[in-house]
Amino acid sequence: MSSHPPLPPEFLASLTALLGDRLSTSAAVREHHGRDESIFQAMPPDAVAFVRNTAEVVATVKMCQQYRVPIVPYGAGSSLEGHTLAARGGLTLNLQQMDQVLTIHDQDQTATVQPGVTRKALNAALRDTGLFFPVDPGADASFGGMCATRASGTNAVRYGTMRENVLNLTVVTADGEVITTGRRAKKSAAGYDLTRLFVGSEGTLGVVVEATVRTYPLPESILAAVCAFPDINTAVQAVVQSIQLGVPLARCEFVDSVAIRAINAYSKTGLPEQPHLFFEFHGSASGVREQVELVQEICNEGGGAQFQWARTPEERTKLWEARHNTYFAALQLRPGCRSVVTDVCVPISQLAECVNDTARDLQQSGMLAPIVGHVGDGNFHVQMLVDAASHAEVEAAEQLNARLVARALAMDGTCTGEHGVGLHKQGFLIDELGSASVNVMRQIKHAMDPHNIMNPGKIFAF
Amino acid sequence: MSSHPPLPPEFLASLTALLGDRLSTSAAVREHHGRDESIFQAMPPDAVAFVRNTAEVVATVKMCQQYRVPIVPYGAGSSLEGHTLAARGGLTLNLQQMDQVLTIHDQDQTATVQPGVTRKALNAALRDTGLFFPVDPGADASFGGMCATRASGTNAVRYGTMRENVLNLTVVTADGEVITTGRRAKKSAAGYDLTRLFVGSEGTLGVVVEATVRTYPLPESILAAVCAFPDINTAVQAVVQSIQLGVPLARCEFVDSVAIRAINAYSKTGLPEQPHLFFEFHGSASGVREQVELVQEICNEGGGAQFQWARTPEERTKLWEARHNTYFAALQLRPGCRSVVTDVCVPISQLAECVNDTARDLQQSGMLAPIVGHVGDGNFHVQMLVDAASHAEVEAAEQLNARLVARALAMDGTCTGEHGVGLHKQGFLIDELGSASVNVMRQIKHAMDPHNIMNPGKIFAF
Repeated sequence: MSSHPPLPPEFLASLTALLGDRLSTSAAVREHHGRDESIFQAMPPDAVAFVRNTAEVVATVKMCQQYRVPIVPYGAGSSLEGHTLAARGGLTLNLQQMDQVLTIHDQDQTATVQPGVTRKALNAALRDTGLFFPVDPGADASFGGMCATRASGTNAVRYGTMRENVLNLTVVTADGEVITTGRRAKKSAAGYDLTRLFVGSEGTLGVVVEATVRTYPLPESILAAVCAFPDINTAVQAVVQSIQLGVPLARCEFVDSVAIRAINAYSKTGLPEQPHLFFEFHGSASGVREQVELVQEICNEGGGAQFQWARTPEERTKLWEARHNTYFAALQLRPGCRSVVTDVCVPISQLAECVNDTARDLQQSGMLAPIVGHVGDGNFHVQMLVDAASHAEVEAAEQLNARLVARALAMDGTCTGEHGVGLHKQGFLIDELGSASVNVMRQIKHAMDPHNIMNPGKIFAF
Repeated sequence: MSSHPPLPPEFLASLTALLGDRLSTSAAVREHHGRDESIFQAMPPDAVAFVRNTAEVVATVKMCQQYRVPIVPYGAGSSLEGHTLAARGGLTLNLQQMDQVLTIHDQDQTATVQPGVTRKALNAALRDTGLFFPVDPGADASFGGMCATRASGTNAVRYGTMRENVLNLTVVTADGEVITTGRRAKKSAAGYDLTRLFVGSEGTLGVVVEATVRTYPLPESILAAVCAFPDINTAVQAVVQSIQLGVPLARCEFVDSVAIRAINAYSKTGLPEQPHLFFEFHGSASGVREQVELVQEICNEGGGAQFQWARTPEERTKLWEARHNTYFAALQLRPGCRSVVTDVCVPISQLAECVNDTARDLQQSGMLAPIVGHVGDGNFHVQMLVDAASHAEVEAAEQLNARLVARALAMDGTCTGEHGVGLHKQGFLIDELGSASVNVMRQIKHAMDPHNIMNPGKIFAF
């Protein structure tokens, strides 16, 4: 049972007057919105509001402010650190019906979307323009959520993360003001960078109601390939060399042998059960040829096998779907399990040592835990498959994660490359940046949301 | 005369005890630090502190906090919007002696510098690594200043601005705490993006004492060229087409015929007095060839002349020095004049119209005012040469600028692409983002610097 006070009846009455049956207090709806992809026990909100436009968001936020009701923005529910859980009860603001692609400026290579638009939906809308949106965290996440967690994924090595790809936001602040953080100019020096402040703020500073993002011309030539390696170290070293030589890899994913086993079973592929790199190359026809020749040479010298090519769009789709489904594939390795997923990111010179030491640690622990990663950025994930009901297993996973984070921090890395802090990494955040730095974040939070109604309990306990 | 209260004698005594003769109250030193490259009358500080290390910055800031003395961080003095002027008196913190390149991690392509290091000094330090730092605002600005103004310049079209190229900062906050904003990992989702908050904060939130920046492998092949056009429109259209086709131009500068005249006189070049584009191409040998062929074809179809090549490093240096010296060259067109420099940036689809309308407006005004710009980003500058003593001329320049800003804002552009707000664009900032958005900036400023000692009067009056 929740230890939070129940929602005031006047609040519920006002919200019902606004939203009608788009305000739900049903147990099933609340339960569904109390989860994400993390291992945390559900923390259901007291009610869920399905809003359709910015005016409704404003009115809802103002009511929450008036009655001091916590408000949790909710997009696709694909977060991994408990971001959408209602840690202090209150109202979940479901933004899925705000799903319009508002404008596409193809000549400027920008698009403006509502927060409920997913990355696949935007790419479908862009289909006839010759443009695409590159940020791809695997899940078909919403733009509101991707902004909130500063998402990245497989393409970030070439095209950057949400940090680099959001041009401006329209945000409803905690007191219900609608603000815009910038214009569509490619760069600006006009005041504090509120865009980047909201990107990664995990819903704790306001509700994103519009995002203008960069899009890119579809490359003239795209080639994808997989390459098997005898061991983890040789695979990672091939990546490090390619990055240090400045090869503009579009995707560069590490997949260990456990993950390959999961992929083979789930996606009906027949890859050898060895560590692999999955590559994608973008450019002109000759540019891609140059990249491929160089990387293939690096891989072969390092002991990698011949590249297996995915030449057609269909083959590429199959390859990347298999990679994206690794998370779910891995869960099938142990039916009924849940995942504790790590997310460190280290400077590229430290990557091989970090992955090697982590693999050794996992082996000693006996934990079933595939390793995959966006290794071109120095970012990798260990997906530890645990019985959520077993305190001992969850504790062992947390200890492995704590050791991994300590290892990454000692290498000048971060505890989270792309998943965010959420409920889970608040102590690591302080380890990483120091309490003085986190106190500055708290000062900002307190100034912008003095009554702590915006997704309270995330990033810091406050 | 200053209308500010004099510095408290106890404050001066304490600071003298700390810094000895590195605290100066001489009129000449104060006067020198009361200027930048803008047209503003000098606003000298009451004293200037020449600090040598972070501990001295901390002690100085704490004294300023104790006595509520305004503090103005000062690097190379090359700002253009009055950033370093002591608008409320107080202490200027000269950081030029903090000029050490602290670490170069060549394998990770990062470098950590003190705030007094200039971009040329870092590039000299990088010489043997095969790496370079791309952000190039023309002036040999300091890293502290480039961070503070979110600087960019000629290379930003390919390599991004300071926003994209600062990995983390060490900052002394208004209460004298030393905080770090991030690690050396290429990406992170660990809490609010304090790095990007300080980048562009114009010294109003803290003093940058260390910056870790990204560096890049020197390209295998570099080619530079200039191309003359019959008129402004055809030159700008060639840029727009090249950008929309996704050509990864490393530099793409527009220089109008007035600026060419100034360059020819100042740098002893013999360019035809027509609008020009100055290009630089980076890549592999074949990649550069591809880019050049495509851009040359676009330029020729648009009426541009044959490319004039700068093939050797010496020729390239001469070309870009000529471009960088345009500011000083233009001042020579009218001895004794000062510049009012505009800085709008618009979406690329609007660029031709914006430049054309501006050129027409200038022509009608009779103002002597070369136009140059980082047009690949949609950013250009009008350098209006005025007699600073003539109220009518300054007023006419301000009116032209106001019309230009209104034009850019109507095109979804920004009033400042790279020079910042400073003393000069505070009204434009509100026009651009709205008062609700600027109020959020004020909330942050007030939370982080409640007594408004950090560079007060910049960005907003507060």
